[in-house]
Amino acid sequence: MSAPSLPTPRVIHVDTRGAVILSEESPETRDSRGIYLPNYIEPVSHIAVDVGGSLAKVVYFTRSPEPPSSPSIAATRGSSVVSDISTPRSISPSTDEPGNHSPTSSAIKRSGALTPLVLDSPTTPHIHYNGNGLQGLSDGLLRDTILRRAAQHFPGGSLNFERFETDNIDECVAFIRALIERSAAVNHVSIEEMRRGVQIMATGGGAHRFYELFKDELGVEVRREDEMECLIEGMKFITLIPDEVYYFSDELIHTVSHPSTKCSVVHEHATNGLANGSMPPPLERPSPDPPKFGVTFESNPTPQLPCLLVNIGSGVSIIKVDEDGKFERVSGTSLGGGTLWGLLTLLTGATSFDEMLALSEQGDNATVDMLVGDIYGQDYSKLGLKSTMIASSFGKVFRKGGSKTKFSPEDISKSLLYAVSNNIGQIAYMNAEKYNLERIYFGGCFIRGHAATITTLSYAIRFWSKGTKRALFLRHEGFLGAIGAWIKNIVPEEEESQSP
Amino acid sequence: MSAPSLPTPRVIHVDTRGAVILSEESPETRDSRGIYLPNYIEPVSHIAVDVGGSLAKVVYFTRSPEPPSSPSIAATRGSSVVSDISTPRSISPSTDEPGNHSPTSSAIKRSGALTPLVLDSPTTPHIHYNGNGLQGLSDGLLRDTILRRAAQHFPGGSLNFERFETDNIDECVAFIRALIERSAAVNHVSIEEMRRGVQIMATGGGAHRFYELFKDELGVEVRREDEMECLIEGMKFITLIPDEVYYFSDELIHTVSHPSTKCSVVHEHATNGLANGSMPPPLERPSPDPPKFGVTFESNPTPQLPCLLVNIGSGVSIIKVDEDGKFERVSGTSLGGGTLWGLLTLLTGATSFDEMLALSEQGDNATVDMLVGDIYGQDYSKLGLKSTMIASSFGKVFRKGGSKTKFSPEDISKSLLYAVSNNIGQIAYMNAEKYNLERIYFGGCFIRGHAATITTLSYAIRFWSKGTKRALFLRHEGFLGAIGAWIKNIVPEEEESQSP
Repeated sequence: MSAPSLPTPRVIHVDTRGAVILSEESPETRDSRGIYLPNYIEPVSHIAVDVGGSLAKVVYFTRSPEPPSSPSIAATRGSSVVSDISTPRSISPSTDEPGNHSPTSSAIKRSGALTPLVLDSPTTPHIHYNGNGLQGLSDGLLRDTILRRAAQHFPGGSLNFERFETDNIDECVAFIRALIERSAAVNHVSIEEMRRGVQIMATGGGAHRFYELFKDELGVEVRREDEMECLIEGMKFITLIPDEVYYFSDELIHTVSHPSTKCSVVHEHATNGLANGSMPPPLERPSPDPPKFGVTFESNPTPQLPCLLVNIGSGVSIIKVDEDGKFERVSGTSLGGGTLWGLLTLLTGATSFDEMLALSEQGDNATVDMLVGDIYGQDYSKLGLKSTMIASSFGKVFRKGGSKTKFSPEDISKSLLYAVSNNIGQIAYMNAEKYNLERIYFGGCFIRGHAATITTLSYAIRFWSKGTKRALFLRHEGFLGAIGAWIKNIVPEEEESQSP
Repeated sequence: MSAPSLPTPRVIHVDTRGAVILSEESPETRDSRGIYLPNYIEPVSHIAVDVGGSLAKVVYFTRSPEPPSSPSIAATRGSSVVSDISTPRSISPSTDEPGNHSPTSSAIKRSGALTPLVLDSPTTPHIHYNGNGLQGLSDGLLRDTILRRAAQHFPGGSLNFERFETDNIDECVAFIRALIERSAAVNHVSIEEMRRGVQIMATGGGAHRFYELFKDELGVEVRREDEMECLIEGMKFITLIPDEVYYFSDELIHTVSHPSTKCSVVHEHATNGLANGSMPPPLERPSPDPPKFGVTFESNPTPQLPCLLVNIGSGVSIIKVDEDGKFERVSGTSLGGGTLWGLLTLLTGATSFDEMLALSEQGDNATVDMLVGDIYGQDYSKLGLKSTMIASSFGKVFRKGGSKTKFSPEDISKSLLYAVSNNIGQIAYMNAEKYNLERIYFGGCFIRGHAATITTLSYAIRFWSKGTKRALFLRHEGFLGAIGAWIKNIVPEEEESQSP
């Protein structure tokens, strides 16, 4: 029995014509840039919250008349973004690139307000036109905002993205409360009225765990949306945004899928995971430094379905999406982001994701991993196993009677990142093969736009697919569920009946 | 292109009629009991060595006239063996069970000698009949052995199994040298003559790394055999031995594959890894304590092919074997025994495999793993994910800001054993499904007959196959390659051409 097609009438139509991704470069905002939607008018404000095992993601829309400055648009194309995603530079928290936290972007983030159409009701006619509206409004931006609204129902605004740790869920609640209060002031209505014009769309596991908390603390309507439905809805929406989808290293995929004949040695046995007998050419790990294996952005979104969505959070969900939007969680693995962060917390001094990933980029996994060459003293050519291939992750540690001091945090981090990423890529590929799906999207907060993660997942998909399949990534990888919850506005009946 | 069928004419015919597994109970010999072959006569002595990334395995045949004492035979059936394999008792190195190191078994192991037929040649006619043969032979057992040989060409003897750490390969060489020297004395021939009657059959990665070492140090002919061919040859042989193959928990498999209707809730989405929409009944982890989910031995070996062989050493090889013996390494993973031992070496104070596995049996993975219930506060019924299911291995560590002191070695060990075993089971199942294979054998030194490992792999296969497939285990799990090398006596040409 297959899943039902997604209920299109239940979905707000979001006009994505002319959408651009804003420039808010910093390690923190790498995967949470605002998206400017020049043609969208929001009827009812939805604050979407996706509370996962480790992180809580918030998405909301703020109206603003001006299109972003041209640097913002430029930032969504070409080299600057490639380097943001690809170079270790951009991973160090101390990075401070030109344009970071520009007044424009930070103003949108900090002072943006919900301005739902529903507030322009007979009960508050033109209240924002008369001078009273400006009484006591010393905040220049606030005054400016209200004056701008003299132009009725102007379209345009930004989709905003915020992230909190699930363990600090109170920070998330406080942020939303402040947003609602600020919005009431900006719209010059009472907080009560503002609350009536706002809905919280909650998804992820925490939608159940924290339902009462959001309801009681914020005093607004809270609706719960199914996590998987939101993931798919969010993916279908975000892949319509130009320059959102990107992938690694087309050149490498080409060289692999068109091996030179001298590379291809016929032998008796199949190679690792490959059914036919030709030995694959060496699969060099892509360098994070463009242009050799640069990132390519899909500036003209093409139809994205059918596809496989691999959502890597604390754990991993693997979801098959059919051409008509029907979907099914077909597999998953408990070896996900939580495993990497958890083990590296125990094994290294690192205390943050970024720190751990930065460590991994300095490391050499060959000091802890047992390679084919360590066992055979050479390639195992007959099976097409290169001497550089990892035969056993951490396989050298026990042999070296390894007290931890013998192994550097850098090497351990790289080995574990490779192990987790390769494993996810292998299981993802097997499912893509099983369901005959060409497009494999990777989402979830595990990826975080980090070169080490992206290249390793790309490498794994290339290795297992013999270069015939490609790993696709999304800039807002961690927000698919929250975006989906923001888009949905009616909760399906079976959901309500399931609510505890 | 598929692999060639195995060259039967190249294989020594081993008469397995009446074969019994000897009783040599101890944690060290759990998976290395001798096998008595009452009807076999060895033409040329083969000492087989399988040198893997972590362990070197040795197999050789020693002639002896008497069948093993009845306790030995009894030990291969019923409760004592079940408990050996299933109860934590037998895992503690301090275990000392009745009959351990019985004179019989240890005598065979320590004083057993190679007595190849080839030595009974005109050059040494009946030398062992005249009294001179006994000169200076104070060793009662040695004299006894020679007297026994008065009965010409008597059949019968034991296949012996020894294990060494690859890093201590010299111990392995010394053991073989002593065996050859002892055999020369027992057969009353010169060491040179003995060497001419003996061959070393080397396989595994170390067969290449240590070829010169074996050749120079032992002064006997060394032949290299392909690792995969030996694995399959060994599996085909060992599965002919009664009570060699065993599996866990038929009752559980039955309850799972025949779910009561009230257990099966129809819902929209597929469950984890399962294509149809019915929610599976809870898959309780089997208890290691019989009789609830006891071990069942296959006392009457049935045709074993086609099958999938999952060989878990430092790394994991997954090999598809067709009905006609054709085979292919179709997949593998670097997350194997070396990963578990390596990470546990870094994370716990444990210094031996047995110690680590003993730790894992005391642990509670729920303190480090993030369960579905931790995220959802309940089952994710819609996807059929039970609240007790592991959503993220080690997923709680980072949340708890985990300094290692907060987590016990026991809990960490169990979590990692579950993570590695479940992952291997998942990848194994996907391959069994892909190639439509019913029988899934697990071999390799990772398993070591430990309840925790066996139950977890069994559980994983049951979970992913929805109880329709069964994990099969082998008592001599770690010796498949060595047994295969012992059986083979002619090296294929392409092997020789490949030798460096």
